[in-house]
Amino acid sequence: MAALTAHELIARHRPTLDQALKTIRTRAYWSPHPEHPKAYGEGDSLTAEEGKAAFEALLNTQLDLGQPGTDTWVDGEKSPYGIDLGVTYPHPDIDVLLPAMRTGMRAWREAGAEVRAMVCLEILARISARTHEFAHAVMHTSGQAFMMAFQAGGPHAQDRGMEAVAYAYAEQVRTPDAAEWTKPQGKRDPLALRKSFTPVARGISLLIGCNTFPTWNGYPGLFASLATGNAVLVKPHPGAVLPLARTVQIARDVLAEAGFDPNLVALAAESPGEGIARTLAVRPEIKIIDYTGSTAFGDWLETHAHQAQVHTEKAGVNTVLVESTDDYRGMLANLAFSLSLYSGQMCTTPQNLLIPRAGITTDAGPKTFDEVVADLAAAVDGLLGDDSRANALLGALVNPDVKARLKAAPDLGTVALASRKIAHPEFPDATVHTPVIVKLDAAKPDDESVFLHEWFGPVSFAIAVDSAAAAVELLRRTVREHGAMTVGAYSTSQEVMEAVEEACLEECAQLSLNLTGGVYVNQTAAFSDFHGSGGNPSANSTLCDGAFVAGRFRVVEVRREA
Amino acid sequence: MAALTAHELIARHRPTLDQALKTIRTRAYWSPHPEHPKAYGEGDSLTAEEGKAAFEALLNTQLDLGQPGTDTWVDGEKSPYGIDLGVTYPHPDIDVLLPAMRTGMRAWREAGAEVRAMVCLEILARISARTHEFAHAVMHTSGQAFMMAFQAGGPHAQDRGMEAVAYAYAEQVRTPDAAEWTKPQGKRDPLALRKSFTPVARGISLLIGCNTFPTWNGYPGLFASLATGNAVLVKPHPGAVLPLARTVQIARDVLAEAGFDPNLVALAAESPGEGIARTLAVRPEIKIIDYTGSTAFGDWLETHAHQAQVHTEKAGVNTVLVESTDDYRGMLANLAFSLSLYSGQMCTTPQNLLIPRAGITTDAGPKTFDEVVADLAAAVDGLLGDDSRANALLGALVNPDVKARLKAAPDLGTVALASRKIAHPEFPDATVHTPVIVKLDAAKPDDESVFLHEWFGPVSFAIAVDSAAAAVELLRRTVREHGAMTVGAYSTSQEVMEAVEEACLEECAQLSLNLTGGVYVNQTAAFSDFHGSGGNPSANSTLCDGAFVAGRFRVVEVRREA
Repeated sequence: MAALTAHELIARHRPTLDQALKTIRTRAYWSPHPEHPKAYGEGDSLTAEEGKAAFEALLNTQLDLGQPGTDTWVDGEKSPYGIDLGVTYPHPDIDVLLPAMRTGMRAWREAGAEVRAMVCLEILARISARTHEFAHAVMHTSGQAFMMAFQAGGPHAQDRGMEAVAYAYAEQVRTPDAAEWTKPQGKRDPLALRKSFTPVARGISLLIGCNTFPTWNGYPGLFASLATGNAVLVKPHPGAVLPLARTVQIARDVLAEAGFDPNLVALAAESPGEGIARTLAVRPEIKIIDYTGSTAFGDWLETHAHQAQVHTEKAGVNTVLVESTDDYRGMLANLAFSLSLYSGQMCTTPQNLLIPRAGITTDAGPKTFDEVVADLAAAVDGLLGDDSRANALLGALVNPDVKARLKAAPDLGTVALASRKIAHPEFPDATVHTPVIVKLDAAKPDDESVFLHEWFGPVSFAIAVDSAAAAVELLRRTVREHGAMTVGAYSTSQEVMEAVEEACLEECAQLSLNLTGGVYVNQTAAFSDFHGSGGNPSANSTLCDGAFVAGRFRVVEVRREA
Repeated sequence: MAALTAHELIARHRPTLDQALKTIRTRAYWSPHPEHPKAYGEGDSLTAEEGKAAFEALLNTQLDLGQPGTDTWVDGEKSPYGIDLGVTYPHPDIDVLLPAMRTGMRAWREAGAEVRAMVCLEILARISARTHEFAHAVMHTSGQAFMMAFQAGGPHAQDRGMEAVAYAYAEQVRTPDAAEWTKPQGKRDPLALRKSFTPVARGISLLIGCNTFPTWNGYPGLFASLATGNAVLVKPHPGAVLPLARTVQIARDVLAEAGFDPNLVALAAESPGEGIARTLAVRPEIKIIDYTGSTAFGDWLETHAHQAQVHTEKAGVNTVLVESTDDYRGMLANLAFSLSLYSGQMCTTPQNLLIPRAGITTDAGPKTFDEVVADLAAAVDGLLGDDSRANALLGALVNPDVKARLKAAPDLGTVALASRKIAHPEFPDATVHTPVIVKLDAAKPDDESVFLHEWFGPVSFAIAVDSAAAAVELLRRTVREHGAMTVGAYSTSQEVMEAVEEACLEECAQLSLNLTGGVYVNQTAAFSDFHGSGGNPSANSTLCDGAFVAGRFRVVEVRREA
């Protein structure tokens, strides 16, 4: 392929960057990446058929990225849909790979913030053109249903990556490249200096990917670090290597075509049980870590990887207060969808539904606690009544741990909605199950010890609370002690809404109020919504703000007499 | 006094904030705080005589700040100029004071970023008006000579505080207060949400002050945290309480006048040997820490205060490469001043002067290593030959540890310039000493073990190196392993300058090249120069950039159906 010049890249991508820069200030709706599968197929962009074929061509191959220091090849993933992907990946000798990754950093620094942003946008554009391929790769690693894998793993992930590039670029150009500084000295000659300011990378950035959203949760850190001049080592979850391995491959291609060292981006696939992340995380070369996953390892990173800037997204106990509504049907439909989407395997899925034991007022008349729970169960049942629709919404359970929690849930309290297995027409071994809803009581200490932990997966609790005020206090304590990626509330009372809002402001949680339409508490849109707050125990960062990018580089000043 | 309204504050300070916001983008020269003592005295501003009288009126008093939870009163400082200040300060029961500090945070959050910035600028304006008083307070705690205490402790510190307010404000308003988000849905109605975004504080911010620059190093963290909505607890160095106690007092007055809870800013003076910083640093209420001081405690904070965002400025080994010059006299004068100013007790003072053992080329002909060192010694001698001028430049040694190092230095190698004691006409017990310069050899391991540690104070080393290339390598290793707040270099060789520059870019150190006039390597100007890089072991933060402020608050989003 022809080499990519800076000029070409700027002509191609600068307008997009400018729009992204504008949008993160207005936070209005915008996305350059279409959500509809039929929008793809023109030019370099793959059609649905081409994307599927591209994915299938990868199966049972060795994905050779041409990286230095590959000491062995490791097996890849088994799909939650029951098929072996059979892809093998390079395993690094990190004593060879890490030094090699540093080699290209000087040229990458010297390229400057704009060219780095343009290269990142070219990588994203190449990924976007292969969205249909990525959809299958995400589906067969995360277990997401196809349409969700397509959207969340494709355009939404690409949006989040581009948002990070925009923040990274904006942060780097806040300081000018150069300044003339002239300080008056009364009658004497002024003091005069010429100053230059250069953004310099921290070093090598480590991305520790997750199983459920390898691209969506991975792209912000990857692109924020790359755009700020760092090399990026991608350590995927062993169950979701392919989407990130292909991302690395495309990034390496683009870097090389643009005249940079492809080793600025590399993959670290691991042998089973190796735990390579723990080794990498404390290496002196690793200066930045982006992590999505369990609280235990996230906490370990925060307290042990002192040489690095550590960005974590961990677990939380997401809570929705159901106090009253003027759209009972809309509320039930909205909640049913939120609980069902991807079998509740989103870090943003509500877990605890706090409902006054005396019942709630609605536009359909007063409803008792039991009625609300039964109506919600019925709404979920209705939503998932058709197997084809159920399969399209639920996807498959990502791993046996989720299935184990689902099986354990009925013993925790009174089952309001039982889970059932759904047959998948195409993949007979797929593990597809509808959600379970269990009734608990906030006044019972045994119940509290259950619902104040994260039950990741299709398990939610309808929890009887004494009053709205008690619910707000429980919400506040839940967020403070256990964290929450999302909080929701339904209320027609100004007083209750203000109390919930104040609790979320004080405990630093992102709040969705009275969602009854086509936006769900567990979804956030890049360029507009923050994902997590970074201010409660569920995450120490948000996607995406200035703090997410500002520590990824430093500015070195050189000053001379003018 | 009449209450301060937001309207009045905005009318008074918004133009200044706007200029500060503009200047941090251009990084041209600007300061609203005059450097000349005679510029003060109009309106509320104290004259020299009034400032001195105000300082003297504080001596031997109990400085009652009206804080809740004062359980005892602790003695204050003995001046490096030999007098007891005799001020006593409130010691906090932190179990009472910390909760009280949180009480006013909601109203402080609800005031919004602009009003918070205006209140901060009003505090700075009140401090500025009392610059003459602060000059004496800084002089008699840090040991700085009067003029330096006046400038660095007054306008320069106020500039750094205002710079932090500007960064904090800019960071908070990057996200709009509100957004309308409308996402097209093809033929269906668009999805529409109303979103609000609120900057929320982390909690209580702890400022751990230093002995040498209580205001200059303290104001950035104090004002950055206050401007982002946090309460700020100020823990001064036991030897330099008064300047920060008066700062707290003025801040509390302004907060109260503006209708906010004065407990948003409080003092934590400590009993001798109490080590209250270690206790406070790990309290759950403390979410941000700003620290200037020893590497040992800074490292401890970075590895133990996991609940807080920790900003540190620690020790470094500042290095100047002397390779060649076209202004030998200017270079010597510039270096002599840098070594002498405040007896080398600046975190930015050069310590290691790397000089090729084969000598250097200059506009005054070639100079051997010994000639360069002798000429530099003579330049220092000349600069400090007059006792009155010496006193005005040197100030007093801040504490016995500095004096002990000065006494130990002659045994480390060959003395090129001996220290001598200077009598102070006004303060006979002042500990004023000229700097010592000791010759060492980079090729000798014993010497290396000496010069690769910080010798804080008036001790510098003229170090023979094999070549310019060897010097650059030593510089690189010094910065990487021991950190540096500043690096300087003198060279007429493009190749050498590029090598030094590249080393500083890679190791992340701030570089001054060929300074021969009235700007010195150890001085940085707010709004233009970065103080430290935050990217080498001497400090994890810089004054001031986006990263210094971005983590001090989070943004909470509330979204509703439109």
